[in-house]
Amino acid sequence: MTPRRSVYLAGPEVFLPDAPSVMARKAALCADFGFDALVPGDNDPAVSASPADGQGVSMAIYRANLELMTLADFGIFNLTPFRGPSADVGTAFELGLMTGLGKRVYGYTDVVGDYAERIPAKAEAGLGGLRRDQDGWLVETFGRADNLMLDCALEASGSQILRHAAPATQRLRDITGLAACLAQARADLFVSAA
Amino acid sequence: MTPRRSVYLAGPEVFLPDAPSVMARKAALCADFGFDALVPGDNDPAVSASPADGQGVSMAIYRANLELMTLADFGIFNLTPFRGPSADVGTAFELGLMTGLGKRVYGYTDVVGDYAERIPAKAEAGLGGLRRDQDGWLVETFGRADNLMLDCALEASGSQILRHAAPATQRLRDITGLAACLAQARADLFVSAA
Repeated sequence: MTPRRSVYLAGPEVFLPDAPSVMARKAALCADFGFDALVPGDNDPAVSASPADGQGVSMAIYRANLELMTLADFGIFNLTPFRGPSADVGTAFELGLMTGLGKRVYGYTDVVGDYAERIPAKAEAGLGGLRRDQDGWLVETFGRADNLMLDCALEASGSQILRHAAPATQRLRDITGLAACLAQARADLFVSAA
Repeated sequence: MTPRRSVYLAGPEVFLPDAPSVMARKAALCADFGFDALVPGDNDPAVSASPADGQGVSMAIYRANLELMTLADFGIFNLTPFRGPSADVGTAFELGLMTGLGKRVYGYTDVVGDYAERIPAKAEAGLGGLRRDQDGWLVETFGRADNLMLDCALEASGSQILRHAAPATQRLRDITGLAACLAQARADLFVSAA
């Protein structure tokens, strides 16, 4: 019998009012697929209880999450747009970190459109056919779900950002994308179902 | 004579209409401090010329940037808010990647306010004194410039996000923060001025 593999669950759902129950449901789904879920320490009272101030609390959360990502066999990243057209920057940072650590990574988003579709374009056509936003900043039109670094990190790891149109009320909470990532991870890692 | 150290210059200025000249100016500043600048391949025709489609172009850029980050001795990250209240997700990903690779990292932003100040808060007070946005999502109030993972990655590396109020026209182009990072890197790495 091989030891169970562990998966770090990154995503902005830690900021939801019902984060603990959402994370518990996602962790249970990981167990259904035969994996141990490692959940970010943002909502863990044991992590945030001891430091006296915001600086200390945030550093304690950072160190807890860094340790979990170092321990995890692989990561699954909820790349659903958060407070703007792109994924949560904390999640993007963690995708980079686990990529740098040489871990396998998977990701999903609760919206199906390309990144470029979420950026209002300038009325006039840009020079050289390049699409630009209201500020004149270039809009990547590569058919990607987000900034190319995110999509391509997953592609380089043998996967891609899995897109599913979740109902608005289930945004960030939906488990369809997570389940698809877990199924792919199980196939890749030859893990038997629990 | 020791070999010159190289620095990867990450940031959303690659999306500016005048990106090549902005990057050239920033690279020249690095040289003034005795460092060789490694500039992302986004605007390099040699990187984006050969692939036939957007998927191929984006993967070529990803691989070029990954190689530069692997080669670089350290990284400096322009974490100025981009298309929302947070840093560019591509830059956040790269900060994570170089952190995962064990490289020293520095960062700056062209705005001085805390992250929490850029998120419209809900009118009513949240439960337990927690600040929440219009969607009910938690707003981190740790006195940080952005999501705690970004600030704390720099703090764990011995630095912090350096904040400077750049004029609006110089947003993303300003070199004050970059110069401060370069000065700190030179002190840390005991590099003589060119």
